[in-house]
This record gives sequence, structure tokens and C-alpha cells, in this order.
Amino acid sequence: MRFLIIGDVIGKPGRKIVGEKIKAIRKSQNIDAVIVNGENSAGGLGITPETTEELLGFGIDVITTGNHIWDKKEILPYIDSQLRLLRPLNYPPGVPGNGSVILKNNQRKWAVLNLSGRVFMSPLDCPFQALDKELEIIKKETNIILVDFHAEATSEKIAFGWYCDGRVSCVVGTHTHVVTADEKILPSGTAYITDIGMTGAHHSVIGIETKQILSRFLTQIPVRYTVAKENIILNGVIVEVDDQTGKSVSITRFSLS
Amino acid sequence: MRFLIIGDVIGKPGRKIVGEKIKAIRKSQNIDAVIVNGENSAGGLGITPETTEELLGFGIDVITTGNHIWDKKEILPYIDSQLRLLRPLNYPPGVPGNGSVILKNNQRKWAVLNLSGRVFMSPLDCPFQALDKELEIIKKETNIILVDFHAEATSEKIAFGWYCDGRVSCVVGTHTHVVTADEKILPSGTAYITDIGMTGAHHSVIGIETKQILSRFLTQIPVRYTVAKENIILNGVIVEVDDQTGKSVSITRFSLS
Amino acid sequence: MRFLIIGDVIGKPGRKIVGEKIKAIRKSQNIDAVIVNGENSAGGLGITPETTEELLGFGIDVITTGNHIWDKKEILPYIDSQLRLLRPLNYPPGVPGNGSVILKNNQRKWAVLNLSGRVFMSPLDCPFQALDKELEIIKKETNIILVDFHAEATSEKIAFGWYCDGRVSCVVGTHTHVVTADEKILPSGTAYITDIGMTGAHHSVIGIETKQILSRFLTQIPVRYTVAKENIILNGVIVEVDDQTGKSVSITRFSLS
Amino acid sequence: MRFLIIGDVIGKPGRKIVGEKIKAIRKSQNIDAVIVNGENSAGGLGITPETTEELLGFGIDVITTGNHIWDKKEILPYIDSQLRLLRPLNYPPGVPGNGSVILKNNQRKWAVLNLSGRVFMSPLDCPFQALDKELEIIKKETNIILVDFHAEATSEKIAFGWYCDGRVSCVVGTHTHVVTADEKILPSGTAYITDIGMTGAHHSVIGIETKQILSRFLTQIPVRYTVAKENIILNGVIVEVDDQTGKSVSITRFSLS
Ligand SMILES: [Fe+2]
Ligand SMILES: [Fe+2]
Ligand SMILES: [Fe+2]
Ligand SMILES: [Fe+2]
Ligand SMILES: [Fe+2]
Ligand SMILES: [Fe+2]
Ligand SMILES: [Fe+2]
Ligand SMILES: [Fe+2]
Repeated sequence: MRFLIIGDVIGKPGRKIVGEKIKAIRKSQNIDAVIVNGENSAGGLGITPETTEELLGFGIDVITTGNHIWDKKEILPYIDSQLRLLRPLNYPPGVPGNGSVILKNNQRKWAVLNLSGRVFMSPLDCPFQALDKELEIIKKETNIILVDFHAEATSEKIAFGWYCDGRVSCVVGTHTHVVTADEKILPSGTAYITDIGMTGAHHSVIGIETKQILSRFLTQIPVRYTVAKENIILNGVIVEVDDQTGKSVSITRFSLS
Repeated sequence: MRFLIIGDVIGKPGRKIVGEKIKAIRKSQNIDAVIVNGENSAGGLGITPETTEELLGFGIDVITTGNHIWDKKEILPYIDSQLRLLRPLNYPPGVPGNGSVILKNNQRKWAVLNLSGRVFMSPLDCPFQALDKELEIIKKETNIILVDFHAEATSEKIAFGWYCDGRVSCVVGTHTHVVTADEKILPSGTAYITDIGMTGAHHSVIGIETKQILSRFLTQIPVRYTVAKENIILNGVIVEVDDQTGKSVSITRFSLS
Repeated sequence: MRFLIIGDVIGKPGRKIVGEKIKAIRKSQNIDAVIVNGENSAGGLGITPETTEELLGFGIDVITTGNHIWDKKEILPYIDSQLRLLRPLNYPPGVPGNGSVILKNNQRKWAVLNLSGRVFMSPLDCPFQALDKELEIIKKETNIILVDFHAEATSEKIAFGWYCDGRVSCVVGTHTHVVTADEKILPSGTAYITDIGMTGAHHSVIGIETKQILSRFLTQIPVRYTVAKENIILNGVIVEVDDQTGKSVSITRFSLS
Repeated sequence: MRFLIIGDVIGKPGRKIVGEKIKAIRKSQNIDAVIVNGENSAGGLGITPETTEELLGFGIDVITTGNHIWDKKEILPYIDSQLRLLRPLNYPPGVPGNGSVILKNNQRKWAVLNLSGRVFMSPLDCPFQALDKELEIIKKETNIILVDFHAEATSEKIAFGWYCDGRVSCVVGTHTHVVTADEKILPSGTAYITDIGMTGAHHSVIGIETKQILSRFLTQIPVRYTVAKENIILNGVIVEVDDQTGKSVSITRFSLS
């Protein structure tokens, strides 16, 4: 199967480019399924039932998220009703929502997992332990497994990639909003990239108006952030997975403006 | 002028590949000057007078560093004697060493600045204020100015890039040890990249043995780190600067194994 | 002179107890001037022109603050007009508001300084350097100088106390909302205490409803905080300063419910 | 039963005062058992088999620790052999050592638990979940349960206290090395104090030479720390627990120089 995984979609400009381009990309790139990280899809901070459904309406198969998942309160009562919207698996027991989903395309089952790192982030449960537990269940159903590891520190992301090698089809990093140039197939067949970047205005600081972020750094006074609008780019990777083995055949950065 | 800027050199394997390749690269790429980040050149943590001189002996023009600058105590009494070795400019007043240097090639003066970010790092003095002050001095001598901004958070690095746009020739990020794919010339002529990656063993976690880092993440018990040795890659960028204007003409990722 | 310094006033319950008790305390304890930390006076997060004026209306002489100073946006355009309201001195140049004030009681001049720590907090300018600069100016006017050092880490607070010893009349810590039992006169005459605690509902977690904070720790989902209302206690210290030398004669914890 | 719980013992001066005074205190205060936090007992950083055995040799019943537990490598192969030495319970599965112990005095069983917070600290497993699991086991044996919660943030410590109220005999905080003045019996019978302080040289910054810590704050250059030697004080609390109910009758700060 061929997957397109799209980096953090930032507000309306991000949703717009996804909506406009996704059908053509699916066709031209021969994509079987699309995953997007949607944690910034609502005004740059958080995700709502509406932005979730707008993205799913574009034909997105699964939406992953990260630390911004709860920024918009409306998502809390909604999340359990929408199985295609994930939050990091390693939230503590009892938290609404799911961290994984198994879907089916033409008789082939495939799964998506969403986990969060902890270095410079909230102290969630251990993502390594959480992965081990979840794979025990998922591996019974399929070995086509895609992981969005939402994390800050390169050390934690790369370590997590090695930890997954040979156990899942791919690990793609999100959260920094900057694409890295280290995509590769690890020795045991897991495709890996430290970060797939963001989908939104690149004439900005990680999708937000430059002036606002600069003001924050220069004064240390909190600022209301607004989503930037210029130079919209869609960023992601295309991962081709062998249906039989679940191992990756290729991983390619994909970018479009 | 054409500059080669090389990302964090990790221990002996990193120094070795620099030593072996640098002359050929200078020639084939028509490089006028070479800058390397050396904060991990001594056993992966810190830099010593010996590794400094080994790197300079290879024909490196300037060595920049970052948060690991003081890991090896021997560097403290030495640093003031070696003007080609920089530590971040925004250490408080009174700290040994320099954060900038002006050199001359064939009558053309050019400068290097080294600054550190503060997000998820030590609370140094403000890098934005420190830059402003230093540029007042340096701009009187030359407008060919290369900045190594050693920082963790992509927001701080990108914001710093925009802040510098039109005032320096380039801002290259270091510290994460992972190359990003966002190299560009900003609208007012400053070349920018979020991180230029590392020079060392890439079969590793940011240059360190994978097993050790994984053990740390799985147990939270501190581990003695050793430098990894397999899959040595040199990473950096080549920046071409217009001698008259000090603006950048091009920035290109450069990688060699 | 005898000073009463009151710890972080939390919302309406905190303002209420100050309003009700302050006159009687001034009289019974023979207090010459009162300082309160007001960073949580507006709904537990931030301070407004209204809560500032309510506190000043109770006869408070100076209001200090800390990291929550900007939580309520209305304070930004107001702060420059109210010299008795301080924000940490070590915000970068250009930030509205002042970090120190000199007042006069019966011909005696006395000063208050407000600084913030940086460990586990925002990277403001160095509080040690900021203190040095400010004392050069203030020492020309008076040697009765009271410092509110708003900080998290005990190491930074105690180190700051020693750094100030003999140079100011007292250093009282704020921010943790828990009174410490280490009040003392340092060898060169500076009164010191790591934290003077808070003024608000103590049947709570640092002034906020226990259920809300617990929910946050158990789920890692952000929660809207509301100010707790039971078991209201006013906490602070009384510091007696020798008018001639500016050295402290005594420091005593003061608590009242 | 009457328990003496002693705050972080700092290096040789800390061990010395414990050794000299403990017998007399036990007698005069009618103490049934003594617990000390030993994470700084070896040179200020960590604990060794030798300092463990020295402390136990003084008649200490249980040694708790915290984030510095692994600073001295020798403790790793030793810790499983010494059941009276605890490390925080919420280290991940598979980590050497134990986080709780059950002992017997004159037919009465009693237990000690050691947990660590996570705010501004390493991302261990959730201390709230870890407590719940452990209490299920321990409650079958005894309801006299003493908890050392080693944590930085007052919010996390106080929240943990409330979470434990009525389920354990007492929660005492450690780690900040500064005694707080908020000891109390919570409504359902759990004794609580945010921090019991340290046992060592108080003419210092949290037990370390002031000059060294100040140099660190002023220059941001790491410094080798040495244990301070002047003004040695032993700090702790005495908690009286009802043998039948496991509820606390009293908690009193205890200090001796
Ligand atoms: Fe994001
Ligand atoms: Fe994120
Ligand atoms: Fe580095
Ligand atoms: Fe670094
Ligand atoms: Fe506060
Ligand atoms: Fe505060
Ligand atoms: Fe300690
Ligand atoms: Fe500790």
C-alpha cells in the first residue's frame, strides 16, 4: 500500500490547501490512504469537531494529533464518537479518545498509532511501554502499522524510531513543524523521518505570524497568536509498504505549494 | 565568497572524516572558508585544546560551539588564547572566550558570530539583544557575516532567522544533530536553515550508541554515553555570499560519507 | 521602619481578607508600610487595573508581581501610569512598567525591588546583573531596600539571598505559594526567607480548587481553574529595618485567618 | 507509633549529625522508627553502599531517596540486596530496587513508600497511578503507611497530599531542601508537609558551597560542587500515628543543630 502522511495542518490556510489538492495527489501519486496531523487545524491551536469533519470530508482516512489536542474544549465530548481521530495513545487510563485505529482497504487491514514524546513536553505515560502493549493487540490483526510520534527532542524521536525498527511499517515524527532531511529505511524495514513538517503558511514562524512570535521572544510578554497566510505549502511523506511483510519499501518527502 | 559550514562534529569519527575529506571538498566545491561546530568534538561531549587544534590543523577557519562548550574543563583556561574558537556570544559578561571573530581572506573581511537559544536551554542573556549590540560593532568592519545559532526549539530558530534577515549573510542552526530540509534565502537576502545536522556516526542516536540512549529512555537511569562508530556522514551547508552586498546568493545542503 | 510583606493574594477571597484585616494589623503590629504580591489578585491569574486600585485603596503601599503579571491584557496599557505597581525588573528593555519604586514615609525614603528567577521559568534578563545595575541608582537615595524575588527553585532563591546580603534590607521569596520556615537574618544584615506563601483559600492546591488541579495531574488534560474559597489565610512576614543602616533587625512570619 | 522522618542528608556533615544525635532523639522524643532521605548522603550527590550502611548502622529503619539515587554508579548492583533502601516507586518496570517496604515493630506492621514527582523532573511513570497500585497490595498488610514524595513543584506535592488523604498515615515532601511551615493533618487524617528540608550545612545553598552555586548562576558555567560544612542542622518531622486506624494524630517540625 502507498500512504501519504501530511504534517501538522495549520488553521484555515492549511485545511484549504489539503482540500484543494488531495484528490489530485491521491491520483497522481497512486495513494491508497492519507493520514494528516490535525492538532493545529482549528485556528492554529487545537482541533474541533468541525475541522475534524472538514478534513475527513476531503477524504482523509485518519487524523492524528499531539500536545494541542485539548486546546479547543469542544473536542473532549466529541472525540470518543470519531474513531478516525486519534490522540496520543500514552495519555493516562481513563482519558477520552483513542490512540490507535485499525482500518480496512480492499481486504487489507492497516493500523495507525499516535504517540507523544515526553522530553520538554507533558509527563504522559511512557511511550515505549505504551507502544509495546498496543502492538501486542494490533499485531494480531495486521502488520501494516503507521506511527505518528509527536515529539520535540531529536534524541527521543530517533531512539523511538530504532525501538520500533522491524515492528512497525513506519515512524514519522511531527510537532516541530520543520521537515527534516533524514528520511530512511532502518535496517529491519521500518521507514523513519524525524519530522514531516507542517502544512500552512511558511512565510511565518511555524505557521504563526512572525511579528507576534518575535514580539514574544523580545519582550517575554505573551501574545495572542494568529495564523499566517502567505506562502502556503503542504508537507508530508509518501511511504510505500509491502502488504505481505508490513515492511517499508520506500519513504519520500513530498511537498507542494 | 563561498563558505562551507559543517554541523556538530561528534568525537573521533567526526574529526576523522573532516580531516580526510576537507581538502578535497574545498577544492571541488571551490570553498573560501570553512566553519565547523565543535561542541561535541571531544568524546561526544565538549571540546578540548587538543581537538580544537586538530580541527584547526585540518584547515578549518573558525570553530563554533554551544551548550556543551564547558563539558571538558581544560577548555576554560585555554579559550581566551584561541580567537578562532567561539563560544555563544550571549554568555554573561565576564565569561572567558569570545562569541565572534573577524577574519580576512584576500583583502576581504568576514565575520562569524555564535549565539545560543534559550528555549529548553540554559538562561543565557537574550540572543536578540546580544546580536543587536554585536552587529553595531561588526558592521563597521564587514557585511559578510555568518551566524551559528545553536538552539533547540524550531520557533526560536526561525524567529531568529527572520530577526536577522537583511542584517547578516546567513543564519544556520545547530544543536539538534538532524539536518532540516528548509534551507532558503529569506526575502532580504539572509540564507537560513533550521539545522545543519551533525558530522559523525549516523547509525546512532544523535551520534551516541543507540543502546545507551534507549536504555536511558526505558529506565530513566543515567548512562555513560559513548560515541557511535558506524555510518559516518559529514553534514553541512555551502553558502555563497555576494562580497559587495553581504547578501547570500545560494544555500545548499552538503552531505558526504 | 517596620514592614509587612504579604504573599501572593489569590482572587477575591485573598483581596477580601486583606481589605478586612489590614488596618487592624497595621495598628496592632505597628507597621509603617505594607507590600503585597498581587500577581494572582484577579481571578487567581493576573492583575487588572481594578484589583490594583482595590488593593491600593486598602492602604497597600506597593504591589509586586511575577510571572503572571501579563495574564490579564488590561494591565499592559495601565501599568506605566501606576508607579506603585511593579513587575519584575529583569524583563527586557522596552517592556512597559517598572521593577522598582522609591517612596517616602515621614522623611524616610525606602525602596522596593521586584525581580524574577529564571530556573524553570521564562528566560528573562539575568536577575543578578539587573540587581547590580538597579542598586547603583537606588543606593544613592536610600539604603532601606526591600526585594521580592519571585522564583521557583530554592537554589536560585537562596543564592540570590546570599548575593544580596549586606546590600539590601531584605529578600523575600514568592511564587510557590507555600510559606517556608527558614526566615533569618543573614550575616551581613539582610533578612531572608525562601517563600512567604499566599493569601487566599488554603483548602486548595496553591489557591485553586483541588478537584481541578488533581484532574489535571491525573489526565494531563488542561482544566479551567477557579479560585478556591475555604479556609482563607493571610500569610506574610514582618521585617523590622534599622533606619540608619538599612540592615534588618528582625524577620517574623505572620499569619492570620 | 511515633515516627521521625529526616530530610535529605547532605554528605559527611549530614551523616555525622545523624550519627551523633539519633539515639538521644529517639529516647527523648520517644520515637519508634526513623526514616531518612539519603539521596545526597554521598558527597552531596547520590548514595553508596557505604553511606547506606553507615546510616542503617546508626539505627535508621528506612532510607528513602529521589532523583539523585543513581548519581553514584555503585548503588545499581547493590540496591536489590538492601530492602531498607528505597528508590522512587514510579521508575519504570524492570528498574532495580524497590519503592516500598513493610517492616514490623513489636508485632505492628508499618510501611514506607517513596515516590517522585514529575513537574520539572524526569518523566517517570505517573506517581498517582503508581500509588493506587501499590496501596492495593500494602493495605492488605497494614494501614500505617508513611510516604516520602520527592518533588519540586508545590502544586504537585499539595495535590498528591490531597490525593492520599485518608489512605495513608502521612505524606512528607522532600527535594527542595527547605523546610516549609505548612505541616497539618488533612481532613481525613493524613499528616502532610510540603517539604521537611535538609540535614547538613545551612550556611550554604541547599547544602552546597555558596560560592560555587553563585558562580554557576552568574556565569552559567557548570561547576564542581562540594558539600558545605558550616552551621549543621538536622531537619525533619515527628509524626504520631494511631496504631489502630493508621490515621495521624500529630505532625510537628523537628530541628536540631
Ligand atoms: Fe503542531
Ligand atoms: Fe505539537
Ligand atoms: Fe551538538
Ligand atoms: Fe548542543
Ligand atoms: Fe503567585
Ligand atoms: Fe508566580
Ligand atoms: Fe536532595
Ligand atoms: Fe532531589
